[in-house]
Formats: sequence, structure tokens, C-alpha cells
Amino acid sequence: MSRDIKSIISQMTLEEKAGMCSGLDFWHLKGVERLGVPSVMVTDGPHGLRKQAEDADHLGLANSVPATCFPSAVTLASSWNKELMKEVGVALGEESQAEDVAVILGPGANIKRSPLCGRNFEYFSEDPFLSSEMAANHILGVQSQGVGTSLKHFAANNQEHRRMSTNAVIDERTLREIYLASFENTVKKAQPWTVMCAYNKINGEFASENKNLLTDILRDEWGFDGFVVSDWGAVNERDNGLETGLDLEMPASNGLGENKVMEAVKSGKLVEEKLDLAVERILKIIFMAVDNKKENATYDKKEHHQLARKAASEGMVLLKNEDHVLPLAKDKKVAVIGAFAKKPRYQGGGSSHINPTKIDNVFEEITSLVGNDAQVNYAEGYHLHDDQMDEQLIEEAKQAATQSDSAVLFVGLPDRYESEGYDRVHLNIPENHRILIEAVAEVQPNVVVVLSNGAPIEMPWLDKVKGLLEGYLGGQAVGGAVADILYGNVNPSGKLAETFPIKISDNPSFLNFPGEGDTVEYKEGIFVGYRYYDTKEIEPLFPFGYGLSYTNFTYSNLQISEKQIKDTDTVDVTVSVKNTGEIKGKETVQLYVRDVESNVVRPAKELKGFEKVELEPGEEKSLIFTLDKRAFAYYNVDLQDWHVETGEFEILVGKSSRDIVLTDTVFVESTVPVRVTVHRNTLVGDLMANPTLAPLATELLKEANKNNPLMDVADNNEDMAEMMEAMMKYMPLRALANFSQGHFTEEMLTEMIDKLNQASKEQVVQ
Amino acid sequence: MSRDIKSIISQMTLEEKAGMCSGLDFWHLKGVERLGVPSVMVTDGPHGLRKQAEDADHLGLANSVPATCFPSAVTLASSWNKELMKEVGVALGEESQAEDVAVILGPGANIKRSPLCGRNFEYFSEDPFLSSEMAANHILGVQSQGVGTSLKHFAANNQEHRRMSTNAVIDERTLREIYLASFENTVKKAQPWTVMCAYNKINGEFASENKNLLTDILRDEWGFDGFVVSDWGAVNERDNGLETGLDLEMPASNGLGENKVMEAVKSGKLVEEKLDLAVERILKIIFMAVDNKKENATYDKKEHHQLARKAASEGMVLLKNEDHVLPLAKDKKVAVIGAFAKKPRYQGGGSSHINPTKIDNVFEEITSLVGNDAQVNYAEGYHLHDDQMDEQLIEEAKQAATQSDSAVLFVGLPDRYESEGYDRVHLNIPENHRILIEAVAEVQPNVVVVLSNGAPIEMPWLDKVKGLLEGYLGGQAVGGAVADILYGNVNPSGKLAETFPIKISDNPSFLNFPGEGDTVEYKEGIFVGYRYYDTKEIEPLFPFGYGLSYTNFTYSNLQISEKQIKDTDTVDVTVSVKNTGEIKGKETVQLYVRDVESNVVRPAKELKGFEKVELEPGEEKSLIFTLDKRAFAYYNVDLQDWHVETGEFEILVGKSSRDIVLTDTVFVESTVPVRVTVHRNTLVGDLMANPTLAPLATELLKEANKNNPLMDVADNNEDMAEMMEAMMKYMPLRALANFSQGHFTEEMLTEMIDKLNQASKEQVVQ
Repeated sequence: MSRDIKSIISQMTLEEKAGMCSGLDFWHLKGVERLGVPSVMVTDGPHGLRKQAEDADHLGLANSVPATCFPSAVTLASSWNKELMKEVGVALGEESQAEDVAVILGPGANIKRSPLCGRNFEYFSEDPFLSSEMAANHILGVQSQGVGTSLKHFAANNQEHRRMSTNAVIDERTLREIYLASFENTVKKAQPWTVMCAYNKINGEFASENKNLLTDILRDEWGFDGFVVSDWGAVNERDNGLETGLDLEMPASNGLGENKVMEAVKSGKLVEEKLDLAVERILKIIFMAVDNKKENATYDKKEHHQLARKAASEGMVLLKNEDHVLPLAKDKKVAVIGAFAKKPRYQGGGSSHINPTKIDNVFEEITSLVGNDAQVNYAEGYHLHDDQMDEQLIEEAKQAATQSDSAVLFVGLPDRYESEGYDRVHLNIPENHRILIEAVAEVQPNVVVVLSNGAPIEMPWLDKVKGLLEGYLGGQAVGGAVADILYGNVNPSGKLAETFPIKISDNPSFLNFPGEGDTVEYKEGIFVGYRYYDTKEIEPLFPFGYGLSYTNFTYSNLQISEKQIKDTDTVDVTVSVKNTGEIKGKETVQLYVRDVESNVVRPAKELKGFEKVELEPGEEKSLIFTLDKRAFAYYNVDLQDWHVETGEFEILVGKSSRDIVLTDTVFVESTVPVRVTVHRNTLVGDLMANPTLAPLATELLKEANKNNPLMDVADNNEDMAEMMEAMMKYMPLRALANFSQGHFTEEMLTEMIDKLNQASKEQVVQ
Repeated sequence: MSRDIKSIISQMTLEEKAGMCSGLDFWHLKGVERLGVPSVMVTDGPHGLRKQAEDADHLGLANSVPATCFPSAVTLASSWNKELMKEVGVALGEESQAEDVAVILGPGANIKRSPLCGRNFEYFSEDPFLSSEMAANHILGVQSQGVGTSLKHFAANNQEHRRMSTNAVIDERTLREIYLASFENTVKKAQPWTVMCAYNKINGEFASENKNLLTDILRDEWGFDGFVVSDWGAVNERDNGLETGLDLEMPASNGLGENKVMEAVKSGKLVEEKLDLAVERILKIIFMAVDNKKENATYDKKEHHQLARKAASEGMVLLKNEDHVLPLAKDKKVAVIGAFAKKPRYQGGGSSHINPTKIDNVFEEITSLVGNDAQVNYAEGYHLHDDQMDEQLIEEAKQAATQSDSAVLFVGLPDRYESEGYDRVHLNIPENHRILIEAVAEVQPNVVVVLSNGAPIEMPWLDKVKGLLEGYLGGQAVGGAVADILYGNVNPSGKLAETFPIKISDNPSFLNFPGEGDTVEYKEGIFVGYRYYDTKEIEPLFPFGYGLSYTNFTYSNLQISEKQIKDTDTVDVTVSVKNTGEIKGKETVQLYVRDVESNVVRPAKELKGFEKVELEPGEEKSLIFTLDKRAFAYYNVDLQDWHVETGEFEILVGKSSRDIVLTDTVFVESTVPVRVTVHRNTLVGDLMANPTLAPLATELLKEANKNNPLMDVADNNEDMAEMMEAMMKYMPLRALANFSQGHFTEEMLTEMIDKLNQASKEQVVQ
């Protein structure tokens, strides 16, 4: 339906306009009835709908209506399956339509800087490419149903510790290459209806009043044209927020925000056009929701539950499978141990906490799949609500294990260990879980651990168990999904979207997390996740991109369409992958790029492509990856742009970041002119290394160095040759005077610089 | 002799004064004959005199007069022997007197940030306490002879790569705790006559025109009252230098510097009093030299050679001694292998390169010590001047080794591998050295490697050899010193003054060394050397402070004089050390401090005391360490001062940074009032944690939260208790409005803040 939004705005009072920019209550935007602007509802996500029931508290933290609890972002990301992510998005959109929700508050595209961050389970990855591809498909799915999303938390909300006051100090290149990149690709690819700004400050300014982020980058550079909403309570000064690009304040500040805006307009501090613009953006989305509303929409709860089960089993990651301990045989006895088996931990705490339509119980799903009660011995193993070991429970667990052919232990992080609101301070599982593993492993050689957790843990017990399935937070259908994998109904195909360090001190942010007072400095820079472990050559417990299958895949026939390209071209990389095992399976082929030589520090490799493919036994498929400039570029702070240094790049194709199986190279030539400015501190060596300036520089320097004894020494003293060469290379032009015995004057220096700069105007391509 | 320096200056022309502030030539200051101001000479050091002969080049890099080449700083530091360092200083002073040198250019107190720095051999340590104690004793020794020193390179000259143009970006706390601390203690303890400024920039300003460093910190804070001289060629703009605290430009800029100063004075850009002050400082030192000049001074070359030998053997570090392969028995056959055995590498390249009075040949010293030519089989092993393996030489080496009871391999870094002027790019020894080790180890089980090198190397071959002596750069008497240790004439007592990493990527500066273009960011911050390895729990190849002996020492009876002190008090730590072995030996007892809990990031431990003691077999001595505030403090950037957080500190006494044998604690109470300012973004949790403000805050918050549903949820929802608590703790005061349902107004917020700030004026001690 076409409406004249500008005309509607022109009929609004200042109060109404200011009101449109602050929520009505916790979950509703304001409407203006007399102008036909309805009040629409937004609701927490991102992996399910958390719509508050009418009788709930006014905080919106309890009593939400039932909705499908899909696996958390960490699990979805581990599927590396973009189509599946989109399917889940579609389902979320359907549920939103059914519940009359205009915008679902998610997905979260923040980068996992530290495994300690309490909210990591809501985020996708340590890698911005993977993160953004998943976020974009989430959004594409939801929005295909005429429901909006809110891409969050923009930006750099990478910890819960002091999240509303801390200042994230991040250098520009790191911000661009890591933390913003995850949002950039998402926005460009999927155009979320709304973006939610973060609580924290970035480089001294609150995200909620950060013009650089909210306007210059998000809108002007990336072309975002929806509205920006504050995270709930993120508004510092409402008028500053509006001025800098924050359109909507949530939740209601009960007049406070509106009043500040009105005062600012009246005093002339804020031009009314800015307010009008914000209202226009908000109205556009409100009417988009109205126009796309499907009346009497419903959704199929069973179908969504099945989708949740599929997503969970694709997101779980088989990390260890010694002696093919998995899959289990249905005709063998199994001990199912651990309270999680009956009370699964399947989602994280906080705003994303869903009231599920049903919950699969792992124990029951296994029993039903095995089809024989007598084959399954259950033992509780530990108490869910504390960390104290209970000897009685341990004894029972050992007994169950002894009486079985294998033992599957359900352990991990209980709810209280990770949640929105606070960070972990270590990577341990509870003491009683650890003791359980060790005790059972003493009596049963075939131990499989199934983890429930939203982020990495340390595993000092790893060599005591044969099998390890990272179940992450599998959503409400976790039980069936785990059973499917344990018994081979589903061939595991998840791969880690994050590095598991051996110990927390190995993590790149360790010395700078969560910061001091209200400052957290991202001193590790671009070296986040595998970029750090691989470049620093630190052995991880499990690397980024790692995950096992019940079948085998071989890669071959790596081909690159062009061996030499310009940075304005694209290049196609083709690779074949074959299922060489006995059963059907899915494989995620990963493509990384390495800059062989660079003037700036670059990671050992960076993910630039991935594709998941399903293969029957013996089947082979060919995959094509198209790489453009961005795949080779780093963010050049001087140019304020992405830049490729002319040179060779390695194309690394592998099964994980540490299992590269095919390699080739491509030469990329920059088309961007880089102008050199010569000054008194320009180094002799830099001039000589510059193809445009070297001939003239040689001539000028010969004159300048006429009486320079360095020249003789260099010619006549073999012992000191290296040092002399280095001295000259690193010598600033102005210092030549110290070696000229009076010959080289300030005037000659000035003249030399002028001549070189004149020559430099002929543009140099680097 | 008393002189009226001010009166002399008043008689000088502007030209004469400007002239006094620039050198006469490469090595001499200008004099003013008509006013009785002589031209004095300065000369490179720091571990020997590099006085240019009259017929030398004008660069001062070749043909210096013979002088005793003492071991390099890296070797001297590894002795951990302050008295010995002072003895060497005295000898250097004697030689300076004999050679009519007024000031010797050293010592270097720069911190070893990366083992790659080409000039590390000239510096003492990765630890500022050890570095400054050694530098101070060097200076005290030299200056006791009436000769000046020049403490260099002030500051942060921690790499050779682009050293004249690079900008070291270092946060203030790191600068204070690590890079400046090494100079601070030295200046305060030893008052060098002069300080030499570095080539590089620090945080955007050249060290040669850095008022903060040269005047505010060096003079005003630390009380330095000599003159500051530029490193040779470090002057950028001479007038700016003079303005900011650089008194003397070296070498001569042949009128250029003087002219700029005169122009600046004439134009009013530079007040003449500043020039007068610089001249006054320079004259003061010139006359100090003149007054302390010992006519016809000579020195005993043999005695100095003996001292060089003693210093070398105390500085060498026994790193491995499996099966007591050392000391060697004189009556057994030994293969002496490696070209270094006949052409020892005993010093580094560059400005510190000494023309020695004699050079001990290792092979000859061993032969003479053994007393029987037939017992010693020599093989060259490799060519000195390239890295190519020579099969013939390898074969000869294997043969020599096979015919002997043990093989001693002399390998390491040739001259061309490390020097002033350029940095290394890897930590490998030459390929032909590595192959030699592996080849000999295949045929001879008793292999001892003796290293000649100025900084750490990687040792992939380490497990193939039984003995490893880090010989470093031992000076001209290296041969005798090595022989002394190999045959037990001297019991080794050196300990590493730096960490040997397993691989270069383990080093904290790895991702940020040597920087990009002309910027090097010290992103590892205070985590330099063992501060990083210990805090990050990275296993080093050999830890800081490590070194073996031919005897054993046991520590006992750790006592702390007071269990609780104020930060204005001192505390005495006593420990007993006993020689429990069979032979006489020396042990360096190390004292580290750890802050048990802190609001700022602190290293796992920091060296705060060390003492070397000689013990007869069975002998026991008690050592006392006195610790003051500084031993517990970190540099607080807000307070702009050293600060101790009230709390418990561990006192760790050990044989190395990784071999702590005794531990106790002391409680230190801060006496510094820390005032809290409450603002709209102050967190609720911070108020509740503040003993002064908590009662009032509780009362005020109760009113503010009257209608806050968070309170009910927190009371009634066990599942969410942790999250609710965290949310409230991290909630800024201004955000309470979002949860007040209109009750909490902006006026109430302002009033609350005012009341709390009023209460905060009662000063809080933290």
C-alpha cells in the first residue's frame, strides 16, 4: 500500500514526533491513532520468539508465550549451512506472523572475542565472514515472511562485564576487518529492517550516540535504510542519540527521552528535520510490517520442531571418535549418564530465553530410538543445581557404566554458568561433572562425552574418553538430534565456528579481558580466534573449522581461473570433493587466503569462502568460489579504504583452518595509485625502493654524499658491509648533513625534497 | 677547582654558545680557548673504549686504539653481580683516563623487547629492575674514576629496523613500568654525567625533541643534572631540541645546528636563557672532566684482561648438564669442534666494536689447561663466512668426535647475523652450525654445545646434546673463561637475564615487531619477557633467571619482618641459602612480588630484588631484601603516580622466575586517598561496593527503584537470580529511568548524584 509518509509526519505535533522515537512500553512502539499509525510489537529473538504474555512483568523477562526454541546461534553457525539458516529464519518469520510480531530482535553478529563472554551462545563465530554469512541468511529467511529483524548489537558488544558503561578501545583497522566486517556483509547482503545499537562505548563514544557508526558507516557507506533502535536501556542522552543516528529509543523512558528531544528542538540544539527523518524511517518500517501482515497466520508446531531437530543435528560437532566408538550399535547396552540427559540444557539465559512448545528428553529419545528399555541404563551422575560431587551418584554412574557396553556422559555448563548479563571467569565445567567423567572412564573404556554448553570449555580429561560430541545448545529438539547422531541416523557434519583453546590463557584477549574499570583495550587487534592461534603457532585443543564425520572426504583438482588478476577483477577457484567412505554425509569445504608478503601485519590465513555439500558414498562434486578484491584486501587506514598490496596470495582449501589439503597461488595487482610524499625524515632506503623515485634519488644522493665517509667505509670494509648498508637504508635525508662534512646544506636538502616531490606527482601504483 | 661558569657564559658570543651545543667533529665537543674552555673527547663504549685513532675515517667506525674488550652487556647482566659490574666500570674509567677520554658513551639501559633486536647484546635485560641495577653499577664504577658516562638510548630504542624514523607507540603505564623504569632507577642511583637521547620517536615525538622525556621526567622528576646529548645523527630540528631539553648535538652538523639555534634566538622563537642553560650544563661536565683528569694515567692491560676473563666466566650460563657431562675431566680426550674455537666471536658489531688488546683463542686455552696436546682433537666444522654446509668439514668433525670421549661444539651466531644497524628476522643459527650439531651428536653421546651469540636462538636440536653452555659474547678473554668453566676451574654461576622462547612466535612482541612503516605499537604493553610468559603460561625454552651450577643450593627460613604494612613503610625479607654440594659456588637468589588481586592487569610476578652470594660447601648465609612501596606499586595513569592497591602480596623467592622455592605474603595498605566522582553513568554495583557511599546509595536507590519490576523478578525468580544480580550491578544510574515506569525522573537522578558526590568528598582510602 502506498502512503505519503512525509505528509503524515507533517501532520504530527512535535510531541507526537518525539513520541514516535521512544517506545510505548517494553515491547511496543508508539502509534498515532488519529493519523492511522498503529502501535506495533517487537520481540526478543534471535533463535525463537520471546513474546511476553499480557500478564507478564513489565521487564519482559518472564512468562512468554510458547514458541519453537531453535538451536542457539553457536549451534546454527556450526552447521556452516546457509540454506538451513535461512529455513530457520523463515520459520521464525512464520511464528512472528502468527504472534503478530512486527520485528524480531536479532540476529546477533558480534564477534566472539573471548570464550568467556557470557552471551557467546547468541553469536555465531570468531570469524566475521562466517558470522555475517549466517546472520545474513537468518535475516533473509525472517524477512521473506514480511517480518523485520534487528541486527544486533552494533557494535563491539563483546562482553557482558560492565557492558552498559565500558569503553571498547579498538583501532580502526581492527574495527573494520573484524568487528564491523561481521555487520557490513550482513547489512549489504540482507538489508535488515532495523539495526540495534549496543550498550557499550566504542573509542570513547556510546554506540547509542556514535555518528561515525550509526550514520557515516552504517547508512552512508553500507547503504542501510531501516531504523536504528537502542538496545534496551542503551540510551545515554536521547537528544545526542537522535542527532547522531539513533532513531528509536527502547524501552519507554516514560517521557524522559521525548522531553529531551522536544527541548532540544525548541532550543535549536537539534534541527527538526533530523527528528522528522527518524520518524520517517520508523514509519516506513511500521507500514512495511502493516503491509506484510498476514491475517490469521498460524504455523505448524510439529514441523518447526522437526526443523529444530534437523538444525540441531547439523550444528553439533563430532570432535573425537577414537576406535569408531560412534555411532553406537542399537543392540548393545548403553549407559546414559548425567542429569542433562533428562533435563537437557538446550538454550542460554537472558533475553533470548524461549518458552518452548515442547522439550525433547535425551534419555527418552535414546530409549525410543533403541527400541528396548532394557538396553539403556540411566544414572543421574551429578546434581544439576550445585557443583558438589555426590559419591552416591558417582557410584551409581560407575555401576551403570560397568553394566553397559559403552557410556554416554551428558555434561557441560549448567544454566548458572553462562547467561546474558555476566561473563565466565574460567573455562571449567563444574567439579562434579569433571569427577563424573574421570570416575566413569576408570571403569568403562568406551566413554562418549556429549557436551551442552554455549561456548568452549577446557578439557583436561579429554584423553580419558574415546568420543566427544559438542552438542552446544541444541534447542528444544536437542534430545532427538543427539540420539540421531549417537546412533548414526544422522551423519555428523558440524564444524567449529570458533577455536577451542587448550587453556584460557592461550586466548588472544586474555591479558585484556574484560578490561580495567570502564576501559577494555582490544590490544590483540585483528588477531582474533584462529587468526591469532595460526599466526602465533599456538596449538589449539580443537581448531576453527574442525569437525569429524562418519564418512571420509577427499579433495582434488584445485583450479584457479586466472593466475594473475587486477584488484578490480574476480577470480574463480574450483575444487572437487568426493565422499570416499561408506555412507552419505555432508562436508563443509573451507577456502582461506594468505598474503604471502605484506608491508602490514596480516594473519596467517583468513576465511574467504565456504560451501557445504551433501555426497552419497562415492559421489564427487565440484565447487566454485568466486573471490573479489575484498578476499585479498586489508583495511588501509591512510586510504580509508580496503586495499590490496600487489603481490602473491595463497589460496588454501581445507577441511579446517589447520587441515589445509590443497594450495595454489594467484598474483593480484593493485590498481590504486599510492602517492609518496618526501620529507626531511624520508629514509634513503625508501627512496631507493621506490621504482618511480629511485633514479632521481640516486642522482641527488650522489651529490649529497660527495664527502660522506660512510660511502668509503661501505666500499672498503667487508666486515661492516651489512651494517653500513643498513645504516644508509634507515638514514633520514636530514641526517645526511651529519656525514657531509659541511657539504650538504639545509638549502640542498630542501631542494632535493622539492625535486623528489615533483617527480612523485607522477602517480605511483603500488 | 671552582669556576664561575655563569660568568664564562656571559662572556660568550651567541655564536660561541650555539657552538658549544654542537660537536666539533665526530668525537670532540667544541671548546672556547680564549675563555679557558677546552675541547674534550667522548668515545663509544659501553664494554670497552672505542677511541678513534687520529688517522681514522671521519665516521668513527674503523681503526680505534687498542682497549680491553670486556664481555658485552648481555654477558655482564647474566652475572647478576653488581660488584663485578662496578669493577668493570672502574676498569673502563681507568682506560678512559689513560686515553684522555672525558665521557664513555654507555651503558645502554634499553629493554630487550624482542630477541630479534640487532643490538640486544649491548643491553642488559628484559627486566627493568635487573637492567637498571647493572647500568647503575656500570656508571658508579666508571664515574668513580672521574670519567663520565652517557646513559643511552633514552628511550624506547628497542629495535634497529627504521630506528631513525620509527615511532614507538607505548601507553603511559607501560612506558613507566618497563621502558622508563630501566632508566629511572639508574639515574636516581648513579647520576650519570650525561644521558644520550634515542633516534626514534616516542608517541609521535622524536626522543631528541621530547620535552616530556628530556625535561619533565628526566630532570624534574628524577633529578638528573648532567647534560643530554643526541645519539649520533638523532637531531631532527636543532632549535626544537634545545627548547625541549637536548643540550648537545653530536656529531658536528657542520654549522647547520648552530645556525638554526642562532636564528631561533634572534627571531625570539628560542629564549636565550634556554641556550645559556644548555651551555651551563655542558660546561659543568667539561670542567668536571678537566678537574678529575689524572695526568699520565695508565692501566694494567694484563690485569684488565684477567678481569675480563673473570667477568666472562661469571656471565656465562650453564643451561643443560645431563649426566653431569660437565665439567670435563682433564685426563679424557676431547674434540674441540667449530671455527669459533679458533676465531672466537666475542663481541657484537657496530659502535661498540672494540679493537682488543689481545684475544684468547678457545682452542689454545683448552689445550694449555689440559696440558696435553694429544688429548685435544680440533675440527673446523663449518666455514665462518657462509651458511653452506661443507661435507668434508662435517666428516672431519665426526671423526674428531668419534676419537674422543666427548665433543665440545662451538657454534652460534656469526658477526653477520647480529649487529647494530639491523635486526634479525628469525632465531636460527646458520644451517651449517645446526647440521654440525646433529651430525656430531649421531656419533658421540657426550656432546656439549658452547654458544657464542648476543641474544636467544631457537634450539630444535637441544634434546640431542647433553651439555649446553650459553657463552654469549664473552669479550677478549672468552677463551680462558670457557676453558675455566668446561674443566671446572670456575663453577658456573650465570643466570639468564632474558627468556629464551621455544620459538619466536611465542615472544610477546611477535605480532607487533618491528612495526608497520614508521609505526611500531607496543601492544603487548607491560607484558614483556617473563611477565608475558608467566602470565600467559607459555613454556619457555629456558626461563628468565635460570642457570645451573656444579653444586647445589637449598633455600630456607623465609621471614618477613611485618605481615602488614602501610605503603609508606618498608618491609624486610630474610632468607637463608646453603651450599649443599661438594664444591664452592655462587648463587643468585631472586625475589619476585605478585599482587594477589588487583583492579588493573598485573603480571604473574615481577623481580624486585636479587643478591649473588658465594658459598663454600656446607656454608649457609642469610640474605636481607628491603622492599618499599615501589616493590608493590603499579603506575596509575589517573593519579600520575606509582600506586599500591590495598591488599595481599605474595613474596616469591626462587632460583629462577620459574623455580620459586619459598613463598609468603604481606598485606600492604594504601595511604593514598582516592576520590570517587559519581555521574549519570556510574554503575549501581560500583556504588554498592564503595564502603563510604554504599549506605547512602542503598537508601537513595530504594526510592529510585520503588516501581522497578527488576526488584520483584530478582526476589521471585530463582532461575534468573544470577542474571538479575548482574544486570543491577552493571546498571548505570541513568538507565534506572527505563525501569521506573515514570517514577524516576531526571531531577531525581541529578539530586541523587549531587548527594552522593557530597558524601564522596569525605575522602576514601583505597
